[in-house]
Amino acid sequence: MDERAALSMLETELEAAGDDAAVVGEQVITTDMLHERSDFPDGTSRYTAGWRAVGASLSDVAAMGAAATAAVAVYAAPEFDRTELTEFVEGARDVCELVGGAYVGGDLDNHVEFTVATTAIGRTDDPVLRSGAEPGDVVCVTGEFGRSAAGLELFRAGDRERGNELFQFTPRIAAGTALAPDATAMMDSSDGLARSLHQLAEASDCGFEIEFDAVPVADAVEEVADSDDERREAALFFGEDFELVFTVPEDAVETVAERSPVPITRIGRVTEQDLLIDGETLPDRGYTHG
Amino acid sequence: MDERAALSMLETELEAAGDDAAVVGEQVITTDMLHERSDFPDGTSRYTAGWRAVGASLSDVAAMGAAATAAVAVYAAPEFDRTELTEFVEGARDVCELVGGAYVGGDLDNHVEFTVATTAIGRTDDPVLRSGAEPGDVVCVTGEFGRSAAGLELFRAGDRERGNELFQFTPRIAAGTALAPDATAMMDSSDGLARSLHQLAEASDCGFEIEFDAVPVADAVEEVADSDDERREAALFFGEDFELVFTVPEDAVETVAERSPVPITRIGRVTEQDLLIDGETLPDRGYTHG
Repeated sequence: MDERAALSMLETELEAAGDDAAVVGEQVITTDMLHERSDFPDGTSRYTAGWRAVGASLSDVAAMGAAATAAVAVYAAPEFDRTELTEFVEGARDVCELVGGAYVGGDLDNHVEFTVATTAIGRTDDPVLRSGAEPGDVVCVTGEFGRSAAGLELFRAGDRERGNELFQFTPRIAAGTALAPDATAMMDSSDGLARSLHQLAEASDCGFEIEFDAVPVADAVEEVADSDDERREAALFFGEDFELVFTVPEDAVETVAERSPVPITRIGRVTEQDLLIDGETLPDRGYTHG
Repeated sequence: MDERAALSMLETELEAAGDDAAVVGEQVITTDMLHERSDFPDGTSRYTAGWRAVGASLSDVAAMGAAATAAVAVYAAPEFDRTELTEFVEGARDVCELVGGAYVGGDLDNHVEFTVATTAIGRTDDPVLRSGAEPGDVVCVTGEFGRSAAGLELFRAGDRERGNELFQFTPRIAAGTALAPDATAMMDSSDGLARSLHQLAEASDCGFEIEFDAVPVADAVEEVADSDDERREAALFFGEDFELVFTVPEDAVETVAERSPVPITRIGRVTEQDLLIDGETLPDRGYTHG
């Protein structure tokens, strides 16, 4: 079984699984594991690793429309270097403070590969699931896409400073809680915009019509993309951008855009079936987490 | 830096760290990572692995005197076998249900070694810390010691059935909540009774006088121990037993023993300084988590 098949199996087994975070009463909880090999390219600082690992879990809390309560992490490495560990904790703490949560520690473990397991908890009395989109709703996103794809290219080109800068994203907790009262379905874009749209459509049993020209692409992508194909790949399929993808009734779009602390962009509309981009089928592929 | 030095550094850095679980408002949260190599001996079923990994985090919740809310796990393995994964989830779910919590899923990850990262959350409005023991208090424990040491020997001897049975422990949530109103300091014994006593004494800035003959030793230890030394090693130093070690005022011992759903045994008393067992210094060693 590959990871995706195994995840589907678990969703069938466990009632609370299958969304960005599990809901338990008024709490949400989510956990994730990241590795040096697949998630932290050469040049990623331990500060960025702490920020990004904990940020990824906070992004799942945001995707439920929940406020952030706290996060913990297991830091597993072949050895414990004081400076690296301190930087990791600072990154983890800073990203939590940025979104109003508390980083409250965790555990250490010896491991052959640098590996981080993070968990975040949040609270909401009305979680936004992936499953509420209705035909006629509008499809929107927060922020811009392609930052992480651009960051990876910059790391490859040896520009550690800008790579690290682009890899430190803002988990959309503030936007998520602002959108929650009106959003009909929501998730984060960690596996890529295309995969997220497919997952939202499947969970809501609907289709989408997306316009690629409407998708907000990060300026950094222009610096590293040599062609329209590369630009499209970075924005739609690369993933790891941790923006929110959500649906909202037509008459609420303006209100949520005003309420949101980050730019909201309308990229399409909800239909009865089929996932189309500029009239053609949108491939269901994206970032496969290692 | 070794793991223990690194943990001390983190405790200085992070105010909420340093106890069995971090306290955030009325919630407690704890996370842990276990590995095939160091934590799951040959013969451990995936059901037992799920039970034990999630149980270890629930034990940390119990050590705060908190009720269990929920747990999640990241299951990382070289490949995902449907039967193994299902058994793991069943073990995780059963141990949660046993203590009134919910197992709400988690994440999957590809990893060279079978590795599990678990997180549990609980709730209490009055957490019991490690730091409240006072001279004159009595030192008590729940249950029996040496089960895991005996389990490991049975695995080595090829008795998988009994090894797995001994490795499935009951996280002391019910006992912990029953003791919480009176316990002055508490932690779990995952690193071994000796290490736990040292950690409690250090956090409370006190000493203990322990009587070895009073320490309840599991019957299974008698089957596998060939000498008094081996018996002592299993009960005091091996660890991984997940019982509660706590202090309580002399006049509350009887009440808590009556209130607790598992046997409570008095093993010594709190003094001003020094950690003695039968009048001699108790070595500060125990299970070092890999």
